[in-house]
Amino acid sequence: MNAVSTLSAAALAERIFGTVGGLTRDDPGVSRESFGAGESRAMEAVAAIAAELGLACETDAYKNLWMRLPEDARAAPPVILGSHLDSVPHGGNFDGLAGVAAAMMALARYRGRAAEAPPLRALALRGEESAWYGKAYLGSLALTGKLGGEALALRHRDGHGTLGGAMAMLGIDTEAIRAGKPLLAPGDAAAYLELHIEQGPVMTARGWPVTAVTGIRGNLRHNAVRCTGEAGHSGAVPRWLRKDAVLAVAELLSRMDEHWRVLLQMGMDLVMTSGICTTSPDSHAVSVIPGEVRFSLEIRSQDAATMERFYDLVREECRAVEKSRGVAFTFDTRIDTAPATMDPAWIARLQAASLRLGSPLETIPSGAGHDAAVFANAGIPAAMVFVRNENGSHNPHEAMDIADFLKGVDLLTEAVRTV
Amino acid sequence: MNAVSTLSAAALAERIFGTVGGLTRDDPGVSRESFGAGESRAMEAVAAIAAELGLACETDAYKNLWMRLPEDARAAPPVILGSHLDSVPHGGNFDGLAGVAAAMMALARYRGRAAEAPPLRALALRGEESAWYGKAYLGSLALTGKLGGEALALRHRDGHGTLGGAMAMLGIDTEAIRAGKPLLAPGDAAAYLELHIEQGPVMTARGWPVTAVTGIRGNLRHNAVRCTGEAGHSGAVPRWLRKDAVLAVAELLSRMDEHWRVLLQMGMDLVMTSGICTTSPDSHAVSVIPGEVRFSLEIRSQDAATMERFYDLVREECRAVEKSRGVAFTFDTRIDTAPATMDPAWIARLQAASLRLGSPLETIPSGAGHDAAVFANAGIPAAMVFVRNENGSHNPHEAMDIADFLKGVDLLTEAVRTV
Repeated sequence: MNAVSTLSAAALAERIFGTVGGLTRDDPGVSRESFGAGESRAMEAVAAIAAELGLACETDAYKNLWMRLPEDARAAPPVILGSHLDSVPHGGNFDGLAGVAAAMMALARYRGRAAEAPPLRALALRGEESAWYGKAYLGSLALTGKLGGEALALRHRDGHGTLGGAMAMLGIDTEAIRAGKPLLAPGDAAAYLELHIEQGPVMTARGWPVTAVTGIRGNLRHNAVRCTGEAGHSGAVPRWLRKDAVLAVAELLSRMDEHWRVLLQMGMDLVMTSGICTTSPDSHAVSVIPGEVRFSLEIRSQDAATMERFYDLVREECRAVEKSRGVAFTFDTRIDTAPATMDPAWIARLQAASLRLGSPLETIPSGAGHDAAVFANAGIPAAMVFVRNENGSHNPHEAMDIADFLKGVDLLTEAVRTV
Repeated sequence: MNAVSTLSAAALAERIFGTVGGLTRDDPGVSRESFGAGESRAMEAVAAIAAELGLACETDAYKNLWMRLPEDARAAPPVILGSHLDSVPHGGNFDGLAGVAAAMMALARYRGRAAEAPPLRALALRGEESAWYGKAYLGSLALTGKLGGEALALRHRDGHGTLGGAMAMLGIDTEAIRAGKPLLAPGDAAAYLELHIEQGPVMTARGWPVTAVTGIRGNLRHNAVRCTGEAGHSGAVPRWLRKDAVLAVAELLSRMDEHWRVLLQMGMDLVMTSGICTTSPDSHAVSVIPGEVRFSLEIRSQDAATMERFYDLVREECRAVEKSRGVAFTFDTRIDTAPATMDPAWIARLQAASLRLGSPLETIPSGAGHDAAVFANAGIPAAMVFVRNENGSHNPHEAMDIADFLKGVDLLTEAVRTV
């Protein structure tokens, strides 16, 4: 036995996180650029540790890393355990890497007893973060044949170079990507299971170390809705002759906030955000009635019909406010991302495994997007395990306890045992 | 009789507006800089027409222009008819000038019959607009000894030169201004009457050609209130864990808007404006829960107690929203400008005069500030006549009908006859 394979689970986890984090440090935080140097360094480090653990590694034509038990030669569609290795610029060390670490650790636990579980593969994907090329899930979309040629022309955030260029530098077969050639078709995998840190505060607030994800919220966005009223002297125009864009938007958002509250009470899954909301910097003034407000609107839900109905309500309330306040709302292009449902059978397996390990498993929706949504929407049964994490993600302050992470690894290991 | 004194009233009005407007044209609109060249050109042109009308002109130590009937040698405190001659950059031709034109026309109608009215003076003031030096009512404040030495250091909007420098160039005794020496004490004038275009849309909407002003609204301002919540992932944080600054401000403003509506129904005089309202341009994003909003708040009323009570309500609602939404409101320095009440006896005289001329006179508050407020707050009974005007003021699109203006001149003339 080599040094790594004698480590305790906690020490092994620290070893993986410490090694990869150290190689990709970019204070504050880590930078593992999609299809770039940091991501490749992370992948090489993961492959080296996998080899030390006695796993067989191979790289596919799109330069994702696959790991398997060398003694497992079964041809049946495997259960894939995986996540991504890239990060946002100056991001946290656990977003993505935790899922890859869990996958290789769970897989390694079956060394010498491969027949106890279905065929298993650990997968380290590239390019999940939208921060580098403005589009997310690049690696999993390519793998399932859905990235498309247009994405190859996406420019890097610095304005220099394209995604296609970066892929070519890595030796990726971009012509196959352009042709939409999948490396993984629906029948090729029994399931895709992904462990990931939670990117919201719910599990910390509830005291849940691990959960199963019910679904991944889709979203419906308008980046810039305009409310046009009429500017005027703030002293000289009385209320009944005003067309105040700020008060119109305030009323609209307050009405929607109240509808949101009621719909949550009715059990619907829904979040609503207006992250950008501003009067016009060119013309606004303390003593001028605001004639224009520009605001973003984002609706997310696990259920496409809920998003659609809430959106209809937004448009209806806009018409009501237009009528009562004499303003006009102008909507820019609507952008849709479909929600994904996690596989109910796999959620049930995760819950049963958790009970066997001694505790019930709570479920929550994922508000953020994940590669698991791509696999699910490509026809591969997918499920996710969330691990408690403080301070959100996409920042250097992610805080995941190794004890919580190991509960997640135990859960994955147990869940695949009984398939 | 000379050419001017044989003109019809309408032709005389057109002559005054045409001459002064032509001399100060600065497309689009007119520019008559406070204590600057355009204002001085306007003053010389007004003096020249006044002389043609047979009025005696003199300039005081602060370079305001006074006109009187040459045959009126009475020493009793006069009724002053006046307004200002400056304009905002690229402003309209009637804001200010209409009141000076009305004053000289009303005065000229008493030529040869001075004893029918009290002693009268027409006054053309300088420096009413805040656009040039960031402070309003410079001329009337100086005249009443209230400008103060600090104002002399105010910088021109271009950043070059000061108010004191501009005054010195005109030969104004700035040391007297610094010492707070009034040229007009409370006992020196029986009243100050000012005709002015309305700067809001009420009279056009109501179909009123002229009105008497009940009072001039004061205002209470915060230029920048901060609402601080907590930024977070727009998909991953559920409603109950959010501290959304946009929804908090929306709720606050909607609540205040509703209170405002109710208080108006109760007969209070009140306007409320949040002219600037914005998420932080440095950190806002479509998919980030807004952690901060900055907004301005302005409350105006003719009644200081109404402003104070509404302000208390704002602070109380802020505390309620802080409690329910976990946000915090931080207020910058509060800035107060006192309201001014127009003299009830003079309002009654204007109304009686209007009835004698054949129609009742409606009253409205002035939302915008005027020199009349300075005279009123200095202890000189003040009243104002508003003339209907489309398209607001401080822009080249002011639109006053000469027929409406002449109704105002008739009203002023009749009102002073019976003192």
